[in-house]
Amino acid sequence: MPRLTPLVASLPATVPFVGPEAQERARGAPFRARLGANESVFGPSPRAIEAMARAAAETWKYPDPENHDLRHALAAHHGVAPEAIMVGEGIDGLLGYSARLFIAPGDAVVTSDGAYPTFNYHVAGFGGVLHKVPYHEDREDPGALVARARETGARLIYFANPDNPMGTWHDAADVSRMIAAVPDDALLILDEAYIECAPAGTVPPFDTSDRRTLRFRTFSKAYGMAGARVGYVIGHPETIAAYDRIRNHFGMTRIAQAGALAALEDQDWLAEVISRVAEARDRIAGIGRANGLVPLPSATNFVTLDCGADGALARRTLGELAARGIFVRMPFVAPQDRCVRISCGTSADLDLLEVSLPAALAAARS
Amino acid sequence: MPRLTPLVASLPATVPFVGPEAQERARGAPFRARLGANESVFGPSPRAIEAMARAAAETWKYPDPENHDLRHALAAHHGVAPEAIMVGEGIDGLLGYSARLFIAPGDAVVTSDGAYPTFNYHVAGFGGVLHKVPYHEDREDPGALVARARETGARLIYFANPDNPMGTWHDAADVSRMIAAVPDDALLILDEAYIECAPAGTVPPFDTSDRRTLRFRTFSKAYGMAGARVGYVIGHPETIAAYDRIRNHFGMTRIAQAGALAALEDQDWLAEVISRVAEARDRIAGIGRANGLVPLPSATNFVTLDCGADGALARRTLGELAARGIFVRMPFVAPQDRCVRISCGTSADLDLLEVSLPAALAAARS
Repeated sequence: MPRLTPLVASLPATVPFVGPEAQERARGAPFRARLGANESVFGPSPRAIEAMARAAAETWKYPDPENHDLRHALAAHHGVAPEAIMVGEGIDGLLGYSARLFIAPGDAVVTSDGAYPTFNYHVAGFGGVLHKVPYHEDREDPGALVARARETGARLIYFANPDNPMGTWHDAADVSRMIAAVPDDALLILDEAYIECAPAGTVPPFDTSDRRTLRFRTFSKAYGMAGARVGYVIGHPETIAAYDRIRNHFGMTRIAQAGALAALEDQDWLAEVISRVAEARDRIAGIGRANGLVPLPSATNFVTLDCGADGALARRTLGELAARGIFVRMPFVAPQDRCVRISCGTSADLDLLEVSLPAALAAARS
Repeated sequence: MPRLTPLVASLPATVPFVGPEAQERARGAPFRARLGANESVFGPSPRAIEAMARAAAETWKYPDPENHDLRHALAAHHGVAPEAIMVGEGIDGLLGYSARLFIAPGDAVVTSDGAYPTFNYHVAGFGGVLHKVPYHEDREDPGALVARARETGARLIYFANPDNPMGTWHDAADVSRMIAAVPDDALLILDEAYIECAPAGTVPPFDTSDRRTLRFRTFSKAYGMAGARVGYVIGHPETIAAYDRIRNHFGMTRIAQAGALAALEDQDWLAEVISRVAEARDRIAGIGRANGLVPLPSATNFVTLDCGADGALARRTLGELAARGIFVRMPFVAPQDRCVRISCGTSADLDLLEVSLPAALAAARS
């Protein structure tokens, strides 16, 4: 075998997530409800679908490597300069680029134990050393994250608000306090993938003169375009410019650029989705309670249900739901792994959940 | 500014290619003919367009991170195992991953002086040291590339067949000889982006038991899907598996997966495109000759025209064509930069070229 670099040779052959399609191939049948990846079953804006269908015929052209139109529209939407925004292949892609920009082998990185595994994957992929802080009452703990960053001299601090996999959140004042407390030589990776689903008062103002914070957003969640791979990062223009040194300049698809632009322009659809998400959250919480599970408060498009025991029970519940055609996931790490995490579904999806959960739980408990 | 890694801090803030859209924004008008990026103006298969339009409504789902269906279809098409294929975000994306897998700072890499700059960009991005071999009679020089690799202990050898930006090629026997001569500790990056446009006898057989060769293919050229960012690499399954350690597993879009699968299934369309490409090449060559330029033989979807002087004349010709609404590009490095490179166009595109070239050349020469 050709020699891998020593760093790559040291990496395990793992993947952050197995897709539901792989499970479907293994079980020999498609899932009846796809509620495991926090996708938006309500779909993208009809205008975005139309824009993507229209762009399909133009797909012989390379994408604009500057993502000019989308970047400018996002800048206007958020009230920041276009130079403060970099568009990339989903937050996943941008996290990979961020690890490459800032992490040399041995550099310390702080995150929460049980937070987004793809971030950890990218950090490990560039030789970073992860320091993990426990959740506090099922929420990420900003004070503990910052304190650990000071102790370890961390380059990056990962903090998701709202959080995945728990769905919990901190209000804007808390986040602003955390931003202010980031050590001078560290960089806060503030993952706001779910922020559109959060209640008013969760979003701190953008301050792109702050060199210590990068904020990550996506079209994969409330905008319903997970399959189009469109994320963006907002930060100081000099930091943002650094991505141009390393990124795959032609990494975005032309169709995704057109779709995201149309989706952004249809804020009415976004509002409609957010209202359907809120309804679905209430219904999932109700279904959980009716089965003796405790729903955690959620500012996302999913609800995490506390099964009241340990990871083994939750894992069995997951398997029993899958056997009944329902794809869901669960937190990876104890004690959060006592829960299952259920994405907001359509009425039909949640009807199936309502019918299936009692039997799944009974089987898991027996 | 947050500290970049020493490697990234040492990188220049350059980009491999400025897109035509940036030029259009600068000139304040769209190009009338887009003949500079070797896109396929003939477009993707109508069945691919239909598949992409249909997939647009399903874009709320994440893509299958394993690219299972496309990978299996490609395996059947090429007669190799699915495990011998990795699908990625265009050849550009896969070249970036390849540099990351195999290049540690200081490692030697061999390429031709004036060959694909995006490969060089990725090698430099991981600290590789480029050694460049001159073209020989406007063709890449396999013997010289291998010899330089032996001298320098190179990890990677880049060789494009057919070549971009010259359009020239080597036959399968030559390439097989090169493959056999690759040093044991090196890896041949065989970029076959344009191979579908090459004459019979250009493609050596696949041998995925060979650990010293990776072959790169794309849907961006003859398949007409540059905007969808779909490339793939064929090689030894153990080498292919290494990409899973570092890649953005959810980097492909769902629409691109569906489109590429449909495009692959429509080999009639591919044949039709290849025939149109051949006609357009002949016409571009004729237009060149009528204007005193010498067309190079081409096994690609473009024709490189020797303007008979130096880079300055070719660059002025490029500018004069752009002023007349025609986007073309040219080789970057002397002596190849005496040429302009014109992608195959529609009849209307080439009518415009025919009308505009005499005046553009006259202006460039004056």
